[in-house]
Amino acid sequence: MADPIRFYFDFSSPYGYLATFRIEALAAAHGRTVDWNAHLLGVAMKITGQGPLLNQPMRGAYATHDMTRMAREFGAPIVMPEVFPLHSVAASRAFYWLKGKNPEQAVAFVHRIYQAYWAQGRDMRAPEAVAAEADAMGLDGGALREALATDDAKQRLREAVDQAIERGIFGSPMFDIDGELFWGCDKFGQMDRWLKNGGW
Amino acid sequence: MADPIRFYFDFSSPYGYLATFRIEALAAAHGRTVDWNAHLLGVAMKITGQGPLLNQPMRGAYATHDMTRMAREFGAPIVMPEVFPLHSVAASRAFYWLKGKNPEQAVAFVHRIYQAYWAQGRDMRAPEAVAAEADAMGLDGGALREALATDDAKQRLREAVDQAIERGIFGSPMFDIDGELFWGCDKFGQMDRWLKNGGW
Repeated sequence: MADPIRFYFDFSSPYGYLATFRIEALAAAHGRTVDWNAHLLGVAMKITGQGPLLNQPMRGAYATHDMTRMAREFGAPIVMPEVFPLHSVAASRAFYWLKGKNPEQAVAFVHRIYQAYWAQGRDMRAPEAVAAEADAMGLDGGALREALATDDAKQRLREAVDQAIERGIFGSPMFDIDGELFWGCDKFGQMDRWLKNGGW
Repeated sequence: MADPIRFYFDFSSPYGYLATFRIEALAAAHGRTVDWNAHLLGVAMKITGQGPLLNQPMRGAYATHDMTRMAREFGAPIVMPEVFPLHSVAASRAFYWLKGKNPEQAVAFVHRIYQAYWAQGRDMRAPEAVAAEADAMGLDGGALREALATDDAKQRLREAVDQAIERGIFGSPMFDIDGELFWGCDKFGQMDRWLKNGGW
């Protein structure tokens, strides 16, 4: 079986959100699975010297228009959240805690948090807000809320982010296909050709 | 007749170079022409707070790999030039001077300078280097060299850059299709669908 496509996203990233509308179908079309990885772009931005794209002069106006246009193309609802950027530590810790127990639930949780934040615009910073989403999914939000404060949960996220930085992940979405990195929702066409042809 | 696709590029930009391999075919496929516009990204970068992508930590390594992979896909030769970034004022002034006389020659000149810089890696900063390329194309390099120092040539470039900034052009390549902006070589697929469907 071929390696999974490693998919890196930040809950704060609109393009990461949009990628969740296509990544599973892309992988399935090529007999691949997806390995989901939450990332903290803020850590990478300290290295790259960047700030959130949406807040940059000139580039922010373009990106806001582009993400809306792309959302229409992807059939994805999108709004500008009440709080941006999102401090996504709690959601990311929750993601890895769930992934350690049940990867499928962790994926469903990603979709849920992204919907709450980018489709409904709700503030998803607080551990309580994250736990409430888990509850609404039928998971044990209380246990999740407690787990988020543990050293184990903190350590898992720290290690995941360190590994992503080591791998060169500075953006959202980024994809690793057999060691080849692709950055951005605009790469779906190119990734499809890459997967079909085994590179070029 | 539909409006031309406005294509903005900086001679210093590898992705601008790569775009020249596809923009004419894209336009022709949709019964459009291309309006070519040299831009000085350095002016925009003072506003956006960016430096050249290839020189940024993490992002530069990715972009160098990505531009090479994309060049293979586009069938475009590419090397890392001996001097980067390119101070592209002379080439850009020459471009607008030629465009004022003969737009088709100006387009051929863009291809020529991009080949010299991104396919052959030669230093294209000096007015003499730019004039030599014009000579090699059968144009009057001597007249071009003289024109580059005139207030008229300086003014034309300044106005073009000001208009591009006003329009929100901060990257290379950028494309304006009926008032809709698209940024990057990764947008060719999306632009093709946009042109076909008249937006969405």
